[in-house]
Amino acid sequence: MTHVAVLGAAGRMGQAVCHAVETASDLTLASRLDAGDDAATVAASGAQVAVDFTVPSATEANVHALIDAGVHAVVGTTGWDEDSLGRVRDHLQAANAGRAGAADPQLGVLIAPNFALSAVLAMRFAAQAAQYFESAEVIELHHPGKVDAPSGTAVHTAQGMAAARREAGLAPMPDATETALEGARGADVDGIPVHSVRLRGLVAHEEILLGNPGEQLSIRTDSFDRSSFMPGVLLGIRQIGTRPGLTVGLEHLLDL
Amino acid sequence: MTHVAVLGAAGRMGQAVCHAVETASDLTLASRLDAGDDAATVAASGAQVAVDFTVPSATEANVHALIDAGVHAVVGTTGWDEDSLGRVRDHLQAANAGRAGAADPQLGVLIAPNFALSAVLAMRFAAQAAQYFESAEVIELHHPGKVDAPSGTAVHTAQGMAAARREAGLAPMPDATETALEGARGADVDGIPVHSVRLRGLVAHEEILLGNPGEQLSIRTDSFDRSSFMPGVLLGIRQIGTRPGLTVGLEHLLDL
Amino acid sequence: MTHVAVLGAAGRMGQAVCHAVETASDLTLASRLDAGDDAATVAASGAQVAVDFTVPSATEANVHALIDAGVHAVVGTTGWDEDSLGRVRDHLQAANAGRAGAADPQLGVLIAPNFALSAVLAMRFAAQAAQYFESAEVIELHHPGKVDAPSGTAVHTAQGMAAARREAGLAPMPDATETALEGARGADVDGIPVHSVRLRGLVAHEEILLGNPGEQLSIRTDSFDRSSFMPGVLLGIRQIGTRPGLTVGLEHLLDL
Amino acid sequence: MTHVAVLGAAGRMGQAVCHAVETASDLTLASRLDAGDDAATVAASGAQVAVDFTVPSATEANVHALIDAGVHAVVGTTGWDEDSLGRVRDHLQAANAGRAGAADPQLGVLIAPNFALSAVLAMRFAAQAAQYFESAEVIELHHPGKVDAPSGTAVHTAQGMAAARREAGLAPMPDATETALEGARGADVDGIPVHSVRLRGLVAHEEILLGNPGEQLSIRTDSFDRSSFMPGVLLGIRQIGTRPGLTVGLEHLLDL
Repeated sequence: MTHVAVLGAAGRMGQAVCHAVETASDLTLASRLDAGDDAATVAASGAQVAVDFTVPSATEANVHALIDAGVHAVVGTTGWDEDSLGRVRDHLQAANAGRAGAADPQLGVLIAPNFALSAVLAMRFAAQAAQYFESAEVIELHHPGKVDAPSGTAVHTAQGMAAARREAGLAPMPDATETALEGARGADVDGIPVHSVRLRGLVAHEEILLGNPGEQLSIRTDSFDRSSFMPGVLLGIRQIGTRPGLTVGLEHLLDL
Repeated sequence: MTHVAVLGAAGRMGQAVCHAVETASDLTLASRLDAGDDAATVAASGAQVAVDFTVPSATEANVHALIDAGVHAVVGTTGWDEDSLGRVRDHLQAANAGRAGAADPQLGVLIAPNFALSAVLAMRFAAQAAQYFESAEVIELHHPGKVDAPSGTAVHTAQGMAAARREAGLAPMPDATETALEGARGADVDGIPVHSVRLRGLVAHEEILLGNPGEQLSIRTDSFDRSSFMPGVLLGIRQIGTRPGLTVGLEHLLDL
Repeated sequence: MTHVAVLGAAGRMGQAVCHAVETASDLTLASRLDAGDDAATVAASGAQVAVDFTVPSATEANVHALIDAGVHAVVGTTGWDEDSLGRVRDHLQAANAGRAGAADPQLGVLIAPNFALSAVLAMRFAAQAAQYFESAEVIELHHPGKVDAPSGTAVHTAQGMAAARREAGLAPMPDATETALEGARGADVDGIPVHSVRLRGLVAHEEILLGNPGEQLSIRTDSFDRSSFMPGVLLGIRQIGTRPGLTVGLEHLLDL
Repeated sequence: MTHVAVLGAAGRMGQAVCHAVETASDLTLASRLDAGDDAATVAASGAQVAVDFTVPSATEANVHALIDAGVHAVVGTTGWDEDSLGRVRDHLQAANAGRAGAADPQLGVLIAPNFALSAVLAMRFAAQAAQYFESAEVIELHHPGKVDAPSGTAVHTAQGMAAARREAGLAPMPDATETALEGARGADVDGIPVHSVRLRGLVAHEEILLGNPGEQLSIRTDSFDRSSFMPGVLLGIRQIGTRPGLTVGLEHLLDL
């Protein structure tokens, strides 16, 4: 039985995580923390793993406090950059050096921008497949309240495919377009066209299209609500204890 | 048994039409004409209906010769405009006035830019449905050898939906986009975003997306090869004898 | 401004209707009724139209009381059969005869099994298109908690397509299957194969596939939550005042 | 420049392979063989790799003759079983032992039931993803001339997903179905429902659906014509020289 603390427990994601932990037979919810609560008290509750869905301004301090308290962390809060990730990496290295040989486990921290398994798998599969196809495009479809286009996930997906194509030395994609209405061929993300649809009723969807002579491979993810993040969060909670150091991205915990 | 002549019989579409006519149990192929042959000879072959898949520079003269010869025409050749359509309309009116009361049937001419039933139906359904949905977008997908974007069919589809929305007095579509990569939100066709995908292996495909709170309606057509035009051509051949005057667009022959 | 009463206002659908009426600028919520309340009191609240999302055991009595009270009715409750529909039809005829020539409007009742516009439109389009295609199949996809397969909507869709094929005198669909695992080719609904998918995460979805040589037409509806019924309910409220007598099915109020 | 022989060069697949080899800048077509030609003569033509798209009754003898002739083989002919594969494996082992240390390269044979990259990748991705989802189903769609249902590819896909689910110790899929029309829930392949659609106009298509709370992952392949096999065949030709011994299945040559 793994004991779990939830930071940001009153938020929408935090509530969903608490519920998911409580209904998992191999997990126990040890404590709920909210704004103002001290992350250092987590250990006292018996928690071995803490989940952080707080806010960008609080998450880095939380993670350092959890490392000091000897608690593994699974982090879904956004706002991390290379510098702040580097500080966590260094802190973990120092902390784990001090714990070497001791009965205490080596500490691990997972920071992931996306816990939806379908999205993480789709990105991975898209990058793997991209080297084998002449053409590749991405269509992302979201609710009309979204303020940016394309979605971060679509940009990330296209970048991964573009990198795979470069590495495999693929020629530029075939495209005989001579006359086009402005915008028809989508946004250019590292040479991959990305199209953004905004439609009342949708939530978050992505379609990756790969084409060769006579064949097409399509990979599509549909995320209908935030419950889609829970299987990924639970996977992180169950595995982070065996992944010392910093892991960035859920894909590294998948058996692919 | 209806007797059919094919003009442009040696072309790719013409060959396909000849084959389709020959294999239809209620039709007989009466004559094949090619460049240089005189359309006026069609009647002598016993043809009641002539199909024209020739070239823009020849089709108008062919149609007038067929009217003079007392033969119905089904035309798939492109290049028609309001002026040339008007001349056919006038010629038919004069010819049919002269045939009134006679044993000879009233003549009909069908000129259609698209004989693919799925595309014609999709356009019609899209226009009918558009008045009932807050959001509407079009994605068209073609082989990468296509020189224009969006496709003519997609533009036509979007225009039909936009007209239906205007007539129903719909508010502009919801779209909170504040920051976007150039092209991400597609081309604007009368207020309807249209996205063009070009992918090796594809032929001609169109997807119409309509969204309301909690629901989505999608209509998709896939055209894999030119055999997709034959059911529409045969429908035209079978019905034009009962449609005196000029008919523009296959949709008017459909029972919807 | 149309004044609206909601019967079954405490139920999940009833609550959603109340909310939709309150947020529509041309409608006013006049009264909410629940189990035990007398439908005859609706008129006193000033309501011109009443919406009934109650239970099968109560809905018929409600509708007759509303007719007696001179209030139009929009009914989404299930459980109606030919007999109970006939009694409403007769009651309306008698009531409207008594109101003829009076200042009071002729009364209308709409009873609809499905208020999702996308589903109603898809069924209508499927039936219209079916006569033009050699092949037709239906795939319906639902959450795994659904107890029956196929869904009622899919059965209804297939029946509509089968009737259109019969009327058009179409030959049986081509199918060379000689050896098949049991169930592979789906359920047979009037000659149309229907396939039922049950998948965690889905809500209610239907895909209609139509095939001809070289082309495919697909119509898909996705219903994500019960908010998808509200545009159809509001359409019924706005139009029932101009539709005297009994109307069964939302499709009759659509301008198709 | 790799020199390539094609066995079964007059067949439809053989012709397509010859054309693909001739148009690839790094390959040369060294010889074409047909029924009656002796596979042992391939080496004399300078071929380093031979492609076999012949018939089940000839392919095994061809492969053994090619091994004796010191030529790598890429085989797309069907009809192989464990026994015949074992004989090739043994022959290769003996032949390569005799070539050890010599200037001659170690011989490789690739036997693959499916050279369509999109289908091979989809099967692989489906098996990898299956362990992370509660629900999984397969829909395969083919032209109506197909005599068996489900397709071999769909059965293979379902078996791969079922094996991955077993290995991960997943619970049975959720399915509350109590009453169903016969066939509605598809064929049962190792616990995975598989649905077969037969539609005029289609060629060969497969859709893999995976569901979790709030999310869906779909993988779809469309094979429009036999040109879809060529990228896989060329990949086999280019790589088999570095894969000594017997390789069964194109997936082992992919960099995944």
